[in-house]
Amino acid sequence: MRPPLIVVASFLAVGTLVAGAAAAQSIPDTAATLRDKALAGSPAYGVLESLTTEVGARPAGSAAQRRAMEWGVAKLKALGFANVHAEPFTITAWARGAEAAEVTGPYPQKLAILGLGGTVPTPAGGIEAPIALFHSYGEMLAAPAGSLTGKIAVVTEPMARTQDGFGYGMVISMRENGAVEAARRGAVAYMIRSLSTADNRLPHTGAMDYAADVPKIPAAALSPSDASLLDRMVARGAPVTVRLSLASAVTPNAPAWNVVGEIPGREKPDEVIVIGGHLDSWDPGAGAIDDGAGVAITTAAAKLIGDLPRHPRRTVRVVMYGSEEMGGSGSAYAAAHKGEIDHVVLAGESDEGSDLIYRLQLPAGGLDSPALAELGKVLAPLRIILDKTPAQRGGSDVEGLQALGAPIMSYYQDASRYFDTHHSADDVLDRVDVKSMDQNVAAWAALIYMVADSDVDFRRTAPASPAAK
Amino acid sequence: MRPPLIVVASFLAVGTLVAGAAAAQSIPDTAATLRDKALAGSPAYGVLESLTTEVGARPAGSAAQRRAMEWGVAKLKALGFANVHAEPFTITAWARGAEAAEVTGPYPQKLAILGLGGTVPTPAGGIEAPIALFHSYGEMLAAPAGSLTGKIAVVTEPMARTQDGFGYGMVISMRENGAVEAARRGAVAYMIRSLSTADNRLPHTGAMDYAADVPKIPAAALSPSDASLLDRMVARGAPVTVRLSLASAVTPNAPAWNVVGEIPGREKPDEVIVIGGHLDSWDPGAGAIDDGAGVAITTAAAKLIGDLPRHPRRTVRVVMYGSEEMGGSGSAYAAAHKGEIDHVVLAGESDEGSDLIYRLQLPAGGLDSPALAELGKVLAPLRIILDKTPAQRGGSDVEGLQALGAPIMSYYQDASRYFDTHHSADDVLDRVDVKSMDQNVAAWAALIYMVADSDVDFRRTAPASPAAK
Repeated sequence: MRPPLIVVASFLAVGTLVAGAAAAQSIPDTAATLRDKALAGSPAYGVLESLTTEVGARPAGSAAQRRAMEWGVAKLKALGFANVHAEPFTITAWARGAEAAEVTGPYPQKLAILGLGGTVPTPAGGIEAPIALFHSYGEMLAAPAGSLTGKIAVVTEPMARTQDGFGYGMVISMRENGAVEAARRGAVAYMIRSLSTADNRLPHTGAMDYAADVPKIPAAALSPSDASLLDRMVARGAPVTVRLSLASAVTPNAPAWNVVGEIPGREKPDEVIVIGGHLDSWDPGAGAIDDGAGVAITTAAAKLIGDLPRHPRRTVRVVMYGSEEMGGSGSAYAAAHKGEIDHVVLAGESDEGSDLIYRLQLPAGGLDSPALAELGKVLAPLRIILDKTPAQRGGSDVEGLQALGAPIMSYYQDASRYFDTHHSADDVLDRVDVKSMDQNVAAWAALIYMVADSDVDFRRTAPASPAAK
Repeated sequence: MRPPLIVVASFLAVGTLVAGAAAAQSIPDTAATLRDKALAGSPAYGVLESLTTEVGARPAGSAAQRRAMEWGVAKLKALGFANVHAEPFTITAWARGAEAAEVTGPYPQKLAILGLGGTVPTPAGGIEAPIALFHSYGEMLAAPAGSLTGKIAVVTEPMARTQDGFGYGMVISMRENGAVEAARRGAVAYMIRSLSTADNRLPHTGAMDYAADVPKIPAAALSPSDASLLDRMVARGAPVTVRLSLASAVTPNAPAWNVVGEIPGREKPDEVIVIGGHLDSWDPGAGAIDDGAGVAITTAAAKLIGDLPRHPRRTVRVVMYGSEEMGGSGSAYAAAHKGEIDHVVLAGESDEGSDLIYRLQLPAGGLDSPALAELGKVLAPLRIILDKTPAQRGGSDVEGLQALGAPIMSYYQDASRYFDTHHSADDVLDRVDVKSMDQNVAAWAALIYMVADSDVDFRRTAPASPAAK
């Protein structure tokens, strides 16, 4: 099911703003023109179709990610961006090998799984052990030390479907920290119900952590259906035994890149608005909604701004971050650009798929700045709430800039169906609703243009509170 | 998305029929009682939950299929059926091995595939060749002999979504006969877009044929998303090269079983109504909608009839057929029961999933028989069309009986979403809508009871036209 296509009908509603666009438009009028251009069909789908067709899956540190970097440089050049280049950094790359899991007794059945990102491999031949199943992560945390000795710990807590993605936040710890907590209690391996809002046979991967003082045990995600299957087997009372086989390889100091391109400002080129998405993706899918869409949305928005008869006063910079999923690209970018931090006017990342934006947060006081007085009118046809709560998060890759004091913004997208396929093999181009994606482009183009062509200073408007992280 | 739950609200509408059910009910009244019992919660879900949890995937000829047979015998006994036994026969069993496919150039990407049932393996290391892509099967058939020499032929024709499953019938030849037709034109391997109404990353398998006079080439189904990916790559103009690796093993004379149980008739036990589903399934899923549901629906309907204060006059026999997907169980059943063919009052199979029945066809003239005069009233709350067109198909496993002259019936189920997951890894319990499944049980129980407790003779009513097949 696709979200209702409400955005197109809004063209006419703001016709008055667009009138007289020929000569020297006002900033809000130009923003409205950009918005309507995007709604009429933006370059985003072409960018995303190109990336998913010509590159596909592109985990950080892989050969495919190098092709993605080359694709990004070529694409930004082809679209007319200036100062296009790739900024290298290194990461510890993790690569999946052959994986399998099965119930060996009492009811032999194969299980659909994916190893979590960063998991250690099992010994060759796998680990076969009885499972200790918990219906919630809290239940497992309540299990005493030693109680899981020799067992494969399994947590089948499901995830709530929410518009704001809050359901993901509520369970992410069971993926990120569960292997450590299971190992502390003696477990030999760890499995979770995928962090998914669907109930199908698709497992969803994602990053996990280990702790230095706890044995590293293999960890995998079951498809929601397979987690329910284990629930049903365990409910019958007899001990359930599972064999888990995971292979993987780690490459220290693997190359990675942030790809950068600019629409140079016509008056203050050293004042920069930094927008982007992340170019790396998980390996099972094609990284369409996570985060080819974010790359495409912000690239298309900047491209539309660059196509204006005259550039805005400030520079709009697009960054395609090269290692969001396993971490590293945001901090690499911040480290490389620390020297220009005082010139970062605003930073934000699009990393919630391709569905409709419904809410905007700016730095504290930003919505009260005179330069943005008309922003509400410009965004109204897009049905976006202007939320005066200061933005807390600008996206994982923006945390580094945020920590250095850069003002950040946050567009909230409808995440209701995002977690049906996020991090799974089904993160492919077919999941993308083009009209919704173009609403995103419209929102980014209009807002970023208004900031770029004005002298609004969010740090003067009201000091941002850099996150401690 | 689930179909609207319209059936429950219908209970009260027929309260008059149920009134006075205590003593000697009329046949229609008892049928209505059975219907309402089923709608209130039939044993079908319990049967299906048990099969999918305790056995899971059960391809004919596999060790799992032997467990399924044992499960069937035990389940029918536990439910109180009489004459429970397994009728052995042999098949040529096919078993899937490791499979993989990838685009090797110009845009390297992995492809989600499943080998078709019965495919020969590729050489170890796979077959790597340029693809010849056709957007429709007709296009490939129009290609001249020799034109596919050295190529992997790929057909990406999509399938229409229809309530009656007609869309499947329109494309099934491209799965069943395509490898022969591609090989005739010189192809070294053959791939199709899965016969699926979804556009996701799930490949769907299914049976295929070879011809004695044509080289046997390996054949596989791409997920719909991967078929679209190849369409997009080919549209770019450069030759696309794919590597396909398929392993499989064939076992001649593998054991298989039809599992049988009866509700013996109280007056004419040798007159038999034969209903059932097929117990075998494809290997990637758990065989929930195909065809655990049919097994569960017909078993539950017969169980409800068996629980009546007194059995109907004739015998109701449930058959769990053991090799529908790769063929053999229907003909084995017919061969074993040829001697009693004149006593088969009616035969039908439930093999279209678990969604709502919307249409009934009986043998010619059957709906005009006085014994079924009240059938319309009994089925009305279930919203089933009584179609006077004589039934043409009773299900694959009933074709053998039909060919011997047995009268057949057909309940049409809404197949609108059936082919989203049919023959794929996602054919699991979660796909089943319990209320819809119980509507099926209600329909089967009511109709079969009315036939079993009457003396309606469909061959006297009007001769059936046995299919030539």
